[in-house]
Amino acid sequence: MGKEIERKFLLNHAEWEKVEKPAGKHFRQGYITTDPAKTIRVRATENTGWLTIKGMSVGATRLEYEYEIPLTDAIELLDNFSESELEKTRYEIEFCDKLWEVDVFRGQNQGLIVAEIELSSETEQFELPLWVAEEVTHDKRYYNSNLTVHPFQDWK
Amino acid sequence: MGKEIERKFLLNHAEWEKVEKPAGKHFRQGYITTDPAKTIRVRATENTGWLTIKGMSVGATRLEYEYEIPLTDAIELLDNFSESELEKTRYEIEFCDKLWEVDVFRGQNQGLIVAEIELSSETEQFELPLWVAEEVTHDKRYYNSNLTVHPFQDWK
Repeated sequence: MGKEIERKFLLNHAEWEKVEKPAGKHFRQGYITTDPAKTIRVRATENTGWLTIKGMSVGATRLEYEYEIPLTDAIELLDNFSESELEKTRYEIEFCDKLWEVDVFRGQNQGLIVAEIELSSETEQFELPLWVAEEVTHDKRYYNSNLTVHPFQDWK
Repeated sequence: MGKEIERKFLLNHAEWEKVEKPAGKHFRQGYITTDPAKTIRVRATENTGWLTIKGMSVGATRLEYEYEIPLTDAIELLDNFSESELEKTRYEIEFCDKLWEVDVFRGQNQGLIVAEIELSSETEQFELPLWVAEEVTHDKRYYNSNLTVHPFQDWK
């Protein structure tokens, strides 16, 4: 499957409020390991599950292998194997021919909204929507695996 | 997916030599984690790959979730993520309506042959072929995840 190149941004919440949004998808996700060299993530959405293995980030690039699994398996894996979990609602927004995934976090991460864009190379150019603010691609605090352990509401 | 109930035996090598065997399948397998509470195994055979998550054993029973993945993914996962690896050839032998999986280990585990039988309950009765010897279901040394780290040829 191979490599994922992704950049991550905080949001201008006032501008984001004005955006007309499609229905969001609820994600429950947890980590079987949060080791950054081999993160193993389980995600349960409304109707399917995903098992994902990610490697160490080098710049904005990371090895990623993702497999669709039955939802019942995903829930059992979360219940039996996950070290830590988070919940969020994802909105998919098209802007200038690129897909943005905007994650509105819940629970202990309530108040945090993060937008991600997947690129085909580290140097690919793209347009920024008005609701996009500061880039946090390289800030490890925003790794979802870290947000399960050190949630946003505990930050100073 | 759920539970795997499995019993494991050593072999009488002299009797095993006499058995007419089908073609064996070569397995390369490694572990992303060898934590016995959540073992994550990647297996590459001649033409497909498997990703398997196993929980802690309780008696002969263990939670197990197994997914077929592309062979190229399995090889990349082994190359990039596995902590430790082993190689073996597996023979599938039918005996009295039950399937036995006989693993002939290679490399640092050369000399070890182990037979496994999957059961539908811990108390299920079954016939033992002549080539089956001592049971080692509960001997952790024979866990494949342990054989990658403490191979048979290093045992005293």
